[in-house]
Amino acid sequence: MKILGIDPGYAIMGYGIVEMKGNHFKPIAYGAVTTDKDMAMPDRLKHLYAGLMEVIAEYNPEVVSIEQLFFNTNTTTAILVGQARGVAILACANSGLEIFEYTPLQIKQGLIGYGRAEKKQIQHMVKTILNLKQIPKLDDTADALAAAICHGHCADFHSRFSKLK
Amino acid sequence: MKILGIDPGYAIMGYGIVEMKGNHFKPIAYGAVTTDKDMAMPDRLKHLYAGLMEVIAEYNPEVVSIEQLFFNTNTTTAILVGQARGVAILACANSGLEIFEYTPLQIKQGLIGYGRAEKKQIQHMVKTILNLKQIPKLDDTADALAAAICHGHCADFHSRFSKLK
Repeated sequence: MKILGIDPGYAIMGYGIVEMKGNHFKPIAYGAVTTDKDMAMPDRLKHLYAGLMEVIAEYNPEVVSIEQLFFNTNTTTAILVGQARGVAILACANSGLEIFEYTPLQIKQGLIGYGRAEKKQIQHMVKTILNLKQIPKLDDTADALAAAICHGHCADFHSRFSKLK
Repeated sequence: MKILGIDPGYAIMGYGIVEMKGNHFKPIAYGAVTTDKDMAMPDRLKHLYAGLMEVIAEYNPEVVSIEQLFFNTNTTTAILVGQARGVAILACANSGLEIFEYTPLQIKQGLIGYGRAEKKQIQHMVKTILNLKQIPKLDDTADALAAAICHGHCADFHSRFSKLK
């Protein structure tokens, strides 16, 4: 099963594609679609959509695992990141992919076994599981890979998790 | 100048196309792309995108006027509506349209001349300006028409207003 993980954002849209065979994960490709802060938002969204469509066309994943967003206070940021997340979901939906979403807590539990793990622990776990030489440069890429691995771990049980509604 | 107004939402995406000649506005088409609450969110976003793309292809507007969103408390709603707004902006950007955004206050001021106008007053003003037989059934459609008219009124001065960044 080839899984695309996405960490949604409008400046940095992290992605990571992993292949799961049995209990083993193999990294296929990972990185980020980025946009410059000087770009107008419509151009940023267009660039993010086109970038993800390219990634999907090139690596042909079967399912998508996308992080669910939580914001405690700033609704303006929530709208902006929501816009980018909408565009990411659209790219996957328009490519006919099945989409699953996980909370940050579920992703941590899916990787480390408990939800209070720190960012560094998650990154090291991603590096270890995928046998990478080093932790991906961008946090967003590591988070996208974590989301992909989480779905792989949960795949057998995913009826217990919420399919994106 | 043919203006497409959009009131973004994931259940109801209001739209309204008006043609402005001199000081006169003519309604071209108005309505809403709607999605059912039983649909999965990826399907809703896909349907909204496809629906707006159809409207744009059929009526060929030159510019878009989209309402800026504000939420005081609920960031979960902000993310969901943000996702729909992102998809709407993407449809316009992928169609090569120039996009302007206005706050609800600016739209009220653009229509009535002051920002404390009530919903009913806005709706009556839309009906009067466009010479409609009745107020559009959905608030979201009336709001979309209001956004379009607002941009028309402001077009000469739009350098004073913010182009969507």
